[in-house]
Amino acid sequence: MISYETSQNMVSLLPIGIQRGERVCITASLGRILAEDIIADEDYPTHPTSAMDGYAILHSDLNELGTLEIFGDNPAGADEIGHVESGVCIKTFTGSLMPRGADTLIPIENVRVENGQIIIEKPVPYGFAVRPIGESYREGETLIPRGVKIGFAQIGVLAGINRVMVRVAQRPRVSVIATGSEVLDIGEVARHAGQIRSSNSHTLEALITSLGGECIQMGIVGDDKAAIMQRFEEALASSDIVVSTGGVSVGDYDFVKHIVPRLGAEVIFKGVNIKPGQHVMLAQRGEKFIVSLPGFAYSSTVTFMLYVAPLMARMLGCSNPYEPIEATLKVPFAKRSNKSEFTACNLSFEDGRYWVDFDGKKSGSSAILTNLLGDAALMICGEEDGDLEAGTLVRIIKL
Amino acid sequence: MISYETSQNMVSLLPIGIQRGERVCITASLGRILAEDIIADEDYPTHPTSAMDGYAILHSDLNELGTLEIFGDNPAGADEIGHVESGVCIKTFTGSLMPRGADTLIPIENVRVENGQIIIEKPVPYGFAVRPIGESYREGETLIPRGVKIGFAQIGVLAGINRVMVRVAQRPRVSVIATGSEVLDIGEVARHAGQIRSSNSHTLEALITSLGGECIQMGIVGDDKAAIMQRFEEALASSDIVVSTGGVSVGDYDFVKHIVPRLGAEVIFKGVNIKPGQHVMLAQRGEKFIVSLPGFAYSSTVTFMLYVAPLMARMLGCSNPYEPIEATLKVPFAKRSNKSEFTACNLSFEDGRYWVDFDGKKSGSSAILTNLLGDAALMICGEEDGDLEAGTLVRIIKL
Repeated sequence: MISYETSQNMVSLLPIGIQRGERVCITASLGRILAEDIIADEDYPTHPTSAMDGYAILHSDLNELGTLEIFGDNPAGADEIGHVESGVCIKTFTGSLMPRGADTLIPIENVRVENGQIIIEKPVPYGFAVRPIGESYREGETLIPRGVKIGFAQIGVLAGINRVMVRVAQRPRVSVIATGSEVLDIGEVARHAGQIRSSNSHTLEALITSLGGECIQMGIVGDDKAAIMQRFEEALASSDIVVSTGGVSVGDYDFVKHIVPRLGAEVIFKGVNIKPGQHVMLAQRGEKFIVSLPGFAYSSTVTFMLYVAPLMARMLGCSNPYEPIEATLKVPFAKRSNKSEFTACNLSFEDGRYWVDFDGKKSGSSAILTNLLGDAALMICGEEDGDLEAGTLVRIIKL
Repeated sequence: MISYETSQNMVSLLPIGIQRGERVCITASLGRILAEDIIADEDYPTHPTSAMDGYAILHSDLNELGTLEIFGDNPAGADEIGHVESGVCIKTFTGSLMPRGADTLIPIENVRVENGQIIIEKPVPYGFAVRPIGESYREGETLIPRGVKIGFAQIGVLAGINRVMVRVAQRPRVSVIATGSEVLDIGEVARHAGQIRSSNSHTLEALITSLGGECIQMGIVGDDKAAIMQRFEEALASSDIVVSTGGVSVGDYDFVKHIVPRLGAEVIFKGVNIKPGQHVMLAQRGEKFIVSLPGFAYSSTVTFMLYVAPLMARMLGCSNPYEPIEATLKVPFAKRSNKSEFTACNLSFEDGRYWVDFDGKKSGSSAILTNLLGDAALMICGEEDGDLEAGTLVRIIKL
């Protein structure tokens, strides 16, 4: 059995095919991963622009005159912007181009208006409230680098430069196959007490969607070698990654671990010294990957995060949202094995820090998915770690 | 002008109409807000269940005998589960119900099999690898409370209890109206340099969608009183919240601030002592709200988070994702006004803490949306705050 660290290195070194992109309208791009650098094609603002409502003036007139003739106005969006020379001003509004000749904007609040003139009551420094050319950005500047997840700010900046269509990473297609003759899908009528509901298919579909993938739901297949083999072939034909649950342990009906090599796939590893999920298996056929996870709900969820999420992130060309961060243990923790352990914990944020405790978490088997409800995280203990004291800085995976 | 704190209290006290729900399939529920408590209707597991592959035994036989007859097997999902009595064992797999009579599971790795018998090589404690009834949860236990955002773990737990349809909060309908004769939508051809692109419509649509709302995009309306009034009436007819940008400042073409009261709406406040966005206006007509934001991109985004997000969260019955948290200043900060300031900053996470700096952030006008790109946050300084030293714990809003 390889160590967790070795398994992670192996995943990070797998050859991923070419980066595949597609063009979408920015109004449909929320949450997608940008697949091109966004570069400014002009300075912005392109002209000096007013940042307030007021009067465009020559700053040199401020001290010498104190009273200026109002020479028309200059609404935002106007084409004709007028010309300011000594002794006059032009009323100018937020977002308007500055009239030619003017170098400063004196706000409405700083003047008194009488008989078509402004009387300056409170001066301002040179250039006040004028957005200079290129204040926001300069031509040629990289505004957003590829690999960024598109959120509201990215959409706003793209709209601001009139980018309608944008290149994003294609969603990796990820198939999910749940195996096990005991497994029932939601809505199916149970015939006897030995059957259990498949939460795995639906948990993994939600994870795949959240990570920006397209899930192909292959449903449940019983412990039948031919049926499993056929379902895998169908999944491989239509997806970049095939994720299965169950059938990798040491039981007589654990067929998946035997079938994957027979699909012509090369097994990259089988078995990692982790808890939960030690039987996890990773294989590759051409440019496609097969990740066979254990069947228990908690185990399959954790191993998905450890092995499928980084593969998807690499295909998308973005960072993996399940990279560990640091938090502080609120209570002592007793390590149970000499494996790398991933323990469900509560994550709270106080005094500028994340804190870890285990209130209400059940320490039973790997079947307990309810441990991941609420503000949950996974605490990581290394193989070498012993028991940990309260106050220790530990690594966690935020969910 | 009221203070930021007063404005926030006023928003939190606004009467929101009845909570409106709808039923969706759990496969379409990702990201929705749960509008019912999810309560377990039985113990889970319902029967003692095997947590490993091995042999179901009577623990009392372990010490006395050491060798047991294999009395058939018990695959997961089987209906007939057999009966274990002293001297015999039944092969039992992960997820199988425990045979009647058996109280312990001895794993495959702990025995040697010879001539239809197991020879126990390494004993286990009483009850080993048996999931007791109710290990995951008990009948009547609240598994997920209403108000929770549905993620992968919630979907998994719902699937596990065979809940197909679930009640979620209806998405609040939020209309967006951008005002200003200078404003061009994406794709429109500019006729002269005085026109600017509307990023606001698209930034706000992305924010509304991210927060779980349904955006009704009302587009751009020029500085024309009748046209603005008509667009607001159309928006009010179809939405719970109308958000507008522009037209609330002191300029001659700032019509929105005059039109909102004429719509028969009661102005709750106009003007808050904040930077950016001091001209923001909140009004109410019946059960509908009008939030008129300033026109500059940075100002409208910040004031949306401060005033629209909490309203939406209350309608959804969930917590507001833009609640401030604490972070540590990496560098000194010079406060510029006696207002509550919301300053774009970089947020990094090191040594278990969030850190704030301003590298690459431009301190120009409120027009600079690019300041919100990257790992950005808003740092909050109160009216009373002066300059801040490096190391100060400050409040931030994570974006």
